[in-house]
Amino acid sequence: MSQNHPVPDGHRVVIIGGGFGGLFAAQSLGKSGYDVTLLDKRNFHLFQPLLYQVTAGTLTTGDICVPHRVLLRRYKNVRALMSTAYDVDPQARTVRHEFGEVGYDTLIVATGVKHHYFGNDDWAEYAPGLKTIEHALRMRRRIFNAFEMAELEADTERRREWLTFVIVGGGPTGVELAGAVGELANRTMVGDFRAVDPRDARILLVEGADRVLPTYPEALSRRAQEMLEELGVTVVRSTMVEDIGEGSVRMKGPDGSETVSARTVLWAAGVRASSFGVRLAERTGTEPDRGGRMRVNDDLSLPDHPDIFVIGDLARCNDANGRDVPGLAPAAIQQGEYVAKLLKRRAKGKPDKPFKYTDKGTMAVIGRNRAVGDLNGFKVWGFPAWLLWVFVHIYALIGNERRLRVMLQWIWKYFTRKTGDRLVTGRPAKTRDIQHRHETG
Amino acid sequence: MSQNHPVPDGHRVVIIGGGFGGLFAAQSLGKSGYDVTLLDKRNFHLFQPLLYQVTAGTLTTGDICVPHRVLLRRYKNVRALMSTAYDVDPQARTVRHEFGEVGYDTLIVATGVKHHYFGNDDWAEYAPGLKTIEHALRMRRRIFNAFEMAELEADTERRREWLTFVIVGGGPTGVELAGAVGELANRTMVGDFRAVDPRDARILLVEGADRVLPTYPEALSRRAQEMLEELGVTVVRSTMVEDIGEGSVRMKGPDGSETVSARTVLWAAGVRASSFGVRLAERTGTEPDRGGRMRVNDDLSLPDHPDIFVIGDLARCNDANGRDVPGLAPAAIQQGEYVAKLLKRRAKGKPDKPFKYTDKGTMAVIGRNRAVGDLNGFKVWGFPAWLLWVFVHIYALIGNERRLRVMLQWIWKYFTRKTGDRLVTGRPAKTRDIQHRHETG
Repeated sequence: MSQNHPVPDGHRVVIIGGGFGGLFAAQSLGKSGYDVTLLDKRNFHLFQPLLYQVTAGTLTTGDICVPHRVLLRRYKNVRALMSTAYDVDPQARTVRHEFGEVGYDTLIVATGVKHHYFGNDDWAEYAPGLKTIEHALRMRRRIFNAFEMAELEADTERRREWLTFVIVGGGPTGVELAGAVGELANRTMVGDFRAVDPRDARILLVEGADRVLPTYPEALSRRAQEMLEELGVTVVRSTMVEDIGEGSVRMKGPDGSETVSARTVLWAAGVRASSFGVRLAERTGTEPDRGGRMRVNDDLSLPDHPDIFVIGDLARCNDANGRDVPGLAPAAIQQGEYVAKLLKRRAKGKPDKPFKYTDKGTMAVIGRNRAVGDLNGFKVWGFPAWLLWVFVHIYALIGNERRLRVMLQWIWKYFTRKTGDRLVTGRPAKTRDIQHRHETG
Repeated sequence: MSQNHPVPDGHRVVIIGGGFGGLFAAQSLGKSGYDVTLLDKRNFHLFQPLLYQVTAGTLTTGDICVPHRVLLRRYKNVRALMSTAYDVDPQARTVRHEFGEVGYDTLIVATGVKHHYFGNDDWAEYAPGLKTIEHALRMRRRIFNAFEMAELEADTERRREWLTFVIVGGGPTGVELAGAVGELANRTMVGDFRAVDPRDARILLVEGADRVLPTYPEALSRRAQEMLEELGVTVVRSTMVEDIGEGSVRMKGPDGSETVSARTVLWAAGVRASSFGVRLAERTGTEPDRGGRMRVNDDLSLPDHPDIFVIGDLARCNDANGRDVPGLAPAAIQQGEYVAKLLKRRAKGKPDKPFKYTDKGTMAVIGRNRAVGDLNGFKVWGFPAWLLWVFVHIYALIGNERRLRVMLQWIWKYFTRKTGDRLVTGRPAKTRDIQHRHETG
């Protein structure tokens, strides 16, 4: 495929990954002359920015997941296949997936990143991360199970271990998780137990940098820390996690190493390229950076591979100021739409334009009704920030039904402090995750 | 404990199982002088009558599950423990559970029934049943995965196998499941696929008796069958399932045996006593009947064990006409409330009254907007029956927030035919349940 030539009808576009980037690319190519295939290992799109609310029991799975088929239904030139892509041949222009092979003329890779443990893969068992809906349910199970176990535990020391929560990583996800757990322990669940007081929970948010939200302006980091502390969260700064084992976390801070006994450790730290991203890098001879991102051209194509585009969290490119475009949903959406538009321009014989990122800012929520936000230099915090966050996210949700449902849920929570979906599901109670296996030998 | 004597404050009531019977018993004993413990292996109450709607993707888990703690929060004399009870000592009056032992003065057993396979436990792997929320998610995964696999499958024969669904058992659950699958294939998902037409799905509802809903009046069985057929369901009557294997079901009808190749088999047939019920029967020397139910006295206590009550699906007792009280939510609720009232009467020195069942009728839904109902001899069917069903169930739901949410969901579905929560979750796509392991060897 040469770059600035019209492309014929029937040109095959294969999109790997149906997150924000892939989905918006597919939708934007809907009703075009392109023959589009969206491959995803899941049959649904996940509204990732609200995933932590499933963990906290505020929202339920159906609120933030929508089947790809529903979203792509009216685009008859787009087919969705539920299958995991695991290899690519850039010469033959084929992608291999679980159930077969699919050929492409243009490939759009939007498989994102997954969390990683800096080479300590054994930590995964003790400190689940938060990238998929199953992760969220697993975290939810851990959190609520810990309170249940504390209620059952007669031994003071062990009860204390069940009531200790360590959240690793003070970026937006870690801050939101810590705020949610703080809110649960110190507000929502007060009065729900008989033997324990959830307010006795010790919630540590551990961050390697000297402040939480290190990519935000300093003033907002301070505000965020204050709000977290009001919710009973202890912010542990300039501290690295050295080891995570069964029921314990060793960390090293300015004053040396310390081991904390904690039954619940949640991981919100490093990310690396998705498996397909790693394979793509191997096959194209490119090198992802330390954060797992692949450097792309101005048009988001891979160097020396004009027919392969990388978008979303997996792509590394610059904004107008030469800074990295952040791994956020709005960036992925803009990139998906950009590539679709580029292809449609080419079909009409129009010249390419480079990708331009429009920064809409970033926000992080802390607890029930507070947030911090950096909107292109304009700082907001507290309740007004939270209100803005609510509107932005309701607006961004896919489908009026979900908008209404989530709004209802938030209004409900706001006025009653109740969060209903605090379910421990997914395993028979007998096994109770790793913690209980230890407990009973 | 003698039967008609006042009981002191601090008398320990242990309730096993937080379904309808156990929950209503616990709530009715709230703010009484009794010291109440509710033991359940889950931390939430499940609104079982709507479980099949989670399977069909109409409702999501949070819509029908409520944490016990939320429901019992204001009753400070009631504590909820999340632990599986597995043994009882009627002499020592203790119950053993996963994490310890609890003594009782009065025991209320409300552990219900679970599905069973008539001695063919190996069928469980191929034909999941529907008693827990995990079962519902498993069934959901099977159903929607089957359509996804059909879309991926090039071979006509195997595609046909993926599009064949067998529902075993033509009682209310089987009828509701078959109706839901019929609705999905022939209404909801039409237009969602590119390679297959979901209307090609073959949906068999297999019932041993000569009509579906055998406990309903004959006229309603006929109506139900007609409505099922309109949704593309084939009703196979007077037919027993002889064997279920990987991808096949052998059944024997009036015309002999037949083997159907089907990738999705759903079990809605036999039930038996819960494990705790079986243990209780052993320990008290009683014998559950063929359906797993334990015969109880007029006051719902076990013969020779006035301090042990059995309520809900596990209990067998008669209504005013000498017929068995059915295993339905309203019966369990009435029994739970009855036992609580009985205990409170005893605390006041009032004489016992026997349990009296108030029959409110039974209903089964078929598809999006039809139902059949037998309301104490008054028959309803079609759209009016469905409307009645909707109101009854919204009214019965626990919590205004859930009522609003479910109502919203149903209204939405009614007008748009959309059901959003068609998620295939819980396993990495690679394993895709038993079916796919076979598929790829």
